[in-house]
Amino acid sequence: MSPRVPGSAGPVPARAVTPDGAVRQVCRALPEETPVAVVCNGTTQAVMMATPDHIPDFAHGFALSEGFIRDLNDIEEFEVVTHDAGLEARFWLVAEREQALAARRRTMAGPVGCGLCGIDSLDQAARSLPAITAPGAAFSASEISEATDALRGQQPLHDATRAVHAAGLLLPGRGIILAREDVGRHNALDKLLGAMLRDGINPGAGAVVMTSRVSLELVQKCAVAGVPILVAVSAPTAAALRAAEAAGLTVAANARGGGFDLYSHPHRLSGEPDDA
Amino acid sequence: MSPRVPGSAGPVPARAVTPDGAVRQVCRALPEETPVAVVCNGTTQAVMMATPDHIPDFAHGFALSEGFIRDLNDIEEFEVVTHDAGLEARFWLVAEREQALAARRRTMAGPVGCGLCGIDSLDQAARSLPAITAPGAAFSASEISEATDALRGQQPLHDATRAVHAAGLLLPGRGIILAREDVGRHNALDKLLGAMLRDGINPGAGAVVMTSRVSLELVQKCAVAGVPILVAVSAPTAAALRAAEAAGLTVAANARGGGFDLYSHPHRLSGEPDDA
Repeated sequence: MSPRVPGSAGPVPARAVTPDGAVRQVCRALPEETPVAVVCNGTTQAVMMATPDHIPDFAHGFALSEGFIRDLNDIEEFEVVTHDAGLEARFWLVAEREQALAARRRTMAGPVGCGLCGIDSLDQAARSLPAITAPGAAFSASEISEATDALRGQQPLHDATRAVHAAGLLLPGRGIILAREDVGRHNALDKLLGAMLRDGINPGAGAVVMTSRVSLELVQKCAVAGVPILVAVSAPTAAALRAAEAAGLTVAANARGGGFDLYSHPHRLSGEPDDA
Repeated sequence: MSPRVPGSAGPVPARAVTPDGAVRQVCRALPEETPVAVVCNGTTQAVMMATPDHIPDFAHGFALSEGFIRDLNDIEEFEVVTHDAGLEARFWLVAEREQALAARRRTMAGPVGCGLCGIDSLDQAARSLPAITAPGAAFSASEISEATDALRGQQPLHDATRAVHAAGLLLPGRGIILAREDVGRHNALDKLLGAMLRDGINPGAGAVVMTSRVSLELVQKCAVAGVPILVAVSAPTAAALRAAEAAGLTVAANARGGGFDLYSHPHRLSGEPDDA
């Protein structure tokens, strides 16, 4: 038996059944999923189900892409604590940052709106995004076309389980230099963004490549982290594209060996002037 | 141009780029994504990004699978209100049910735990699930093997966009009798569960079929709704299987034409006695 891949729980027994009903016992490697609480100065910001590998990367990426920290200077201390019920990623932020977060919490109405309807909650769900100013690196069309195939070569957990997403960082002429995996596509992106933050890698120098479709939340996370180019194997939602247009993010979708579809802010990949 | 498929936003202009850099203008149908607030008696329970078709089904399914309602008798009034920022699904629940929900809200500590750590929040994330008692319908091995292929025939939004999930209800000898789609797999399941609730379809009589992997949350939703059998095209997480074992849910995964893997509570599909 090969050693267990980090983030997997296998081998788990199963019955493999054929269409005519024949059954044989098999063992499958499965991805694991664990509740992870992200806690800033004693206050839980969120509890998410995540694949329990690279949790420090995940916590840092989540704290960055959700706006709890702006950079490593906001963090005084960090630790991961294991509980029976899951993992706790504990940040102690510098006093100035904690005060800003506390002020933000006070302005949020929380789950109770005006008492009659959900307009307040809907308005809160619309995040305003920073403008992405990085000019973006010069990629060839073939580099973008082949990006998701290149990422496939760096998905050990997916190779073992066939059931997780990945996010990778593509640099011009260097391929995928960093990749992270998770059952959830948003978590995979947060793990990558956290690893980049902790390693001091400038997001403006490359493109983020995802094995998934492009949801609004992925666009929001890229914009907040300052990623100028997002490449995905599947399609974007229309809402994701509107947010990408507004934030200045270049979205290349349906990126498979045979080419890709270029949507918002094409100038970074087409060589055309930015007419947006 | 063919009429727009509900839930899609197309056609959206894009540049189709080949690996050697040739560009041509194309139009793509893309799935839409909209914030939907689920509001019970004036209190927002959650805001989710969802594909804006079958929103009444989605709201009813979410309210059921997240435990806000137990059945249609808990609902006094329901309406969907359109705002600039998104959609609001408004429930007015009967007084007795509203009191039970208010009591539940008071026992939840909310985002602030003990002030030092996230243990409370992690404990709250672990839902206790009802036991599934339905014996389950008699499916042949070939019906389960072919279930995800059968579902593929009922995914008009996916046919148009190649980027959404689906959930379907499979009945013995009748194939997929009902299907719903969404960018999010959890939303697709909630839409299906809501449609079943509103149509008076007994979940114990069939199997739910999903185009996705099996996450813990999908298992939780099926258990709360009383679905005895979950069939998916991809693998389960280990945490999802532990919850399925505990709740009495039969999970059949990797269901593709060539067969499937049978995990928890196999007796419903294998004809073996229930030794769990």
